Amino acid sequence: MANVCRTVGTDADLTASEAVAKIARGDLTAEALTRACLDRIAEIEDQVHAFAFVDPDLAISNAQAVDKAGDRGVIRGVPFAMKDIIDTADMPTGHGSSIYTGHRVAWDAPCVAACRAAGGVSFGKTVTTEFAHRHPNETRNPHNTDHTPGGSSSGSAAAVGAHMVPVAFGTQTTGSIIRPAAFCGTVGYKPSYGDFCTTGVRDNVPSFDTLGLIARSVDDLALFRAAVMALPHEPLDAVDVSALRIGFCRTAFWDKADAATQALLERTADAVSAAGAAVTDFDLPDGEATLPDEVVNVSGFEFSRVMTHERMAHKDQLSADLLDGRVADGLRCSYDQYRASEAVIRDYRQRAYAAMDGVDLLLTPSAAGEAPEGIAWTGDASFNNVWTTIHLPALTLPAGAGPTGLPLGVQLIGQLHRDHRMLSAAKAVQAAVLL
Amino acid sequence: MANVCRTVGTDADLTASEAVAKIARGDLTAEALTRACLDRIAEIEDQVHAFAFVDPDLAISNAQAVDKAGDRGVIRGVPFAMKDIIDTADMPTGHGSSIYTGHRVAWDAPCVAACRAAGGVSFGKTVTTEFAHRHPNETRNPHNTDHTPGGSSSGSAAAVGAHMVPVAFGTQTTGSIIRPAAFCGTVGYKPSYGDFCTTGVRDNVPSFDTLGLIARSVDDLALFRAAVMALPHEPLDAVDVSALRIGFCRTAFWDKADAATQALLERTADAVSAAGAAVTDFDLPDGEATLPDEVVNVSGFEFSRVMTHERMAHKDQLSADLLDGRVADGLRCSYDQYRASEAVIRDYRQRAYAAMDGVDLLLTPSAAGEAPEGIAWTGDASFNNVWTTIHLPALTLPAGAGPTGLPLGVQLIGQLHRDHRMLSAAKAVQAAVLL
Repeated sequence: MANVCRTVGTDADLTASEAVAKIARGDLTAEALTRACLDRIAEIEDQVHAFAFVDPDLAISNAQAVDKAGDRGVIRGVPFAMKDIIDTADMPTGHGSSIYTGHRVAWDAPCVAACRAAGGVSFGKTVTTEFAHRHPNETRNPHNTDHTPGGSSSGSAAAVGAHMVPVAFGTQTTGSIIRPAAFCGTVGYKPSYGDFCTTGVRDNVPSFDTLGLIARSVDDLALFRAAVMALPHEPLDAVDVSALRIGFCRTAFWDKADAATQALLERTADAVSAAGAAVTDFDLPDGEATLPDEVVNVSGFEFSRVMTHERMAHKDQLSADLLDGRVADGLRCSYDQYRASEAVIRDYRQRAYAAMDGVDLLLTPSAAGEAPEGIAWTGDASFNNVWTTIHLPALTLPAGAGPTGLPLGVQLIGQLHRDHRMLSAAKAVQAAVLL
Repeated sequence: MANVCRTVGTDADLTASEAVAKIARGDLTAEALTRACLDRIAEIEDQVHAFAFVDPDLAISNAQAVDKAGDRGVIRGVPFAMKDIIDTADMPTGHGSSIYTGHRVAWDAPCVAACRAAGGVSFGKTVTTEFAHRHPNETRNPHNTDHTPGGSSSGSAAAVGAHMVPVAFGTQTTGSIIRPAAFCGTVGYKPSYGDFCTTGVRDNVPSFDTLGLIARSVDDLALFRAAVMALPHEPLDAVDVSALRIGFCRTAFWDKADAATQALLERTADAVSAAGAAVTDFDLPDGEATLPDEVVNVSGFEFSRVMTHERMAHKDQLSADLLDGRVADGLRCSYDQYRASEAVIRDYRQRAYAAMDGVDLLLTPSAAGEAPEGIAWTGDASFNNVWTTIHLPALTLPAGAGPTGLPLGVQLIGQLHRDHRMLSAAKAVQAAVLL
């Protein structure tokens, strides 16, 4: 095993917000920051395997273009990486599958183009599991290279956690941002469904697919949110923790959380309460435990259709994880079952939103525990599935280490389309009890 | 002016259902049918300009492969065309824009792959307006080449109307299937939102984008629906018109319909009533007239983001129609306005579904009248917008000709996710009163 995570002692340690400020002051250039990230990659990438593609010359050239343009985009000069299911005009997009090795497209996905327009440095592509489903590729957890970084946004979480790049795009259809972000000790953000344009991002299950971000500070998420959505950047509001109403949601799957995670969550609930927040136990509406069965139908039906070309033309290059998993689920599911499950989910969303009416945030586990050993399994998504299914914004904050020294996280859930408020409240919670 | 529409007197006149039956009997091959379609194209394409790409050798080779495979897919041997915003592995995908002239991708969109898997012959790409927005390309209405075929699925409607291909894919974000289908004398079908997988189809406004079909018979829609959705083919049910409850919906925009269209709709309502259906006047819930204003916000917000790469990298190749239209709408709209409009629409949907509880079908205009003269304007979408916005399945049936001899259509609306029932009822209505 190796733990390659450390403070590097270079500009690679900067968060995006710190880098933007330093660049604005004239104390740093996009090129210098990009070179610092590339140096860090040169140092540890052979142990982490976070990147599906990074071309130093291209990254530096993109950085030089930003320095030369000189205008003040909100993320000016910040290198950002993209999960390798996101289209890019100047780098291959491989989808984590041998079917698309070296595959090139003619455009940047809107999220990439928007970040470039806001001054970001398009930096490299991060490893994804096969088509952002379960089958892993080679990425290792930088905190212990014998363990999974989680998936499917494996490389994004590992790269950001190991200070190889300050911010990376991930996507979540079940638990593919929050879980790896927690496993790698980073801040992960799954926006409200529909907020980030998913055009140019490979579909998995369109009803749930959510584009999001992995970073090392909550402020960075607000910054990149503004860039991605082409909205004015509004810094996070100063929130008084004592004004927050927080629901402690152990979920129907609490028994799946290990002792350290349960203790972490209880401790965090006590701490925010001690900081003055109104903390109450929060139960999701009836039907939570069986909701995953409905999700299996919807996910399977849609994913099996999305995968049609690859199933027909390249079946021998698809993993058994994929064919026997979500594809098989989908081919078993009739149209009526699909629509019945979708109706249950739609109804469940409305009931969940109503139940959350009196709370600002929910506090809940990010994952069942530390990153599992080995890289064959990316971990249990029981603590992520419901939030993705009901489209609510979710965030994981790093919260110390578990029994074997790997990172743990706590997850906060906000109200639908109140992401800025959730991020502001999360920053306050982090400052009050986690830092 | 030229009217190039006529019965060709070859297998190009066959509907997909007729062709499937003839092929199953051994009286026709995919190759012979494909050659008949190619002959028809050779005859009139220089006047109609329906195709963005058709390579006779490739189409024939695709047909030969189907003949050779010999298995019994539900659309075995039927050539189908694809609007040129739909990805294809063996043909360019140009999006109706000079930015993507000759643009190639590595895969078939799932809808194409599914039709190939079901025995269809991937035939060619049909002309779309620029990115399926308003700016037209060169397609002409085959019933009068001085007139627009409508848009944005211009080439699909023209090709099917002129017997160049039996079935073609279209997409609708406002009125882009139903209107051109009506203008070209064809049967157009916009499925319930979400039923047809839109992966691999260029996004326009993801909240409304709907993939659908243009054909020459209602049966063909059921056949292709099964193929596209990878579901068992269930022939349409025999429906007794006298058992139908039909709401006659003149809409808030009735005054925009010309006299011939108003008369056609009144006549059709009388005829289905005379055939025994329970016909009642149907008013959409309050808010119908202002719903388009909300749609402008949502459409603009999403489309302006979808178009980010092209706006940043190829702005000089975008039309003023696009930049000053939906993109400008979107850049004016704040996030809060976007979400407020989206909430109004979501609420409106639920009220509309409730209002439709007692009816099987709504009867409403397909368009304001005949296809307008000239090709600069693809026509008014007032009679399509609301149905796309509220996600209901819609169908247009050819219904005679207007004052200048161009086709008119009547539109039928079904209940959400009851498309098979809508198609069955529509077939009965067509047989009873329109044929």
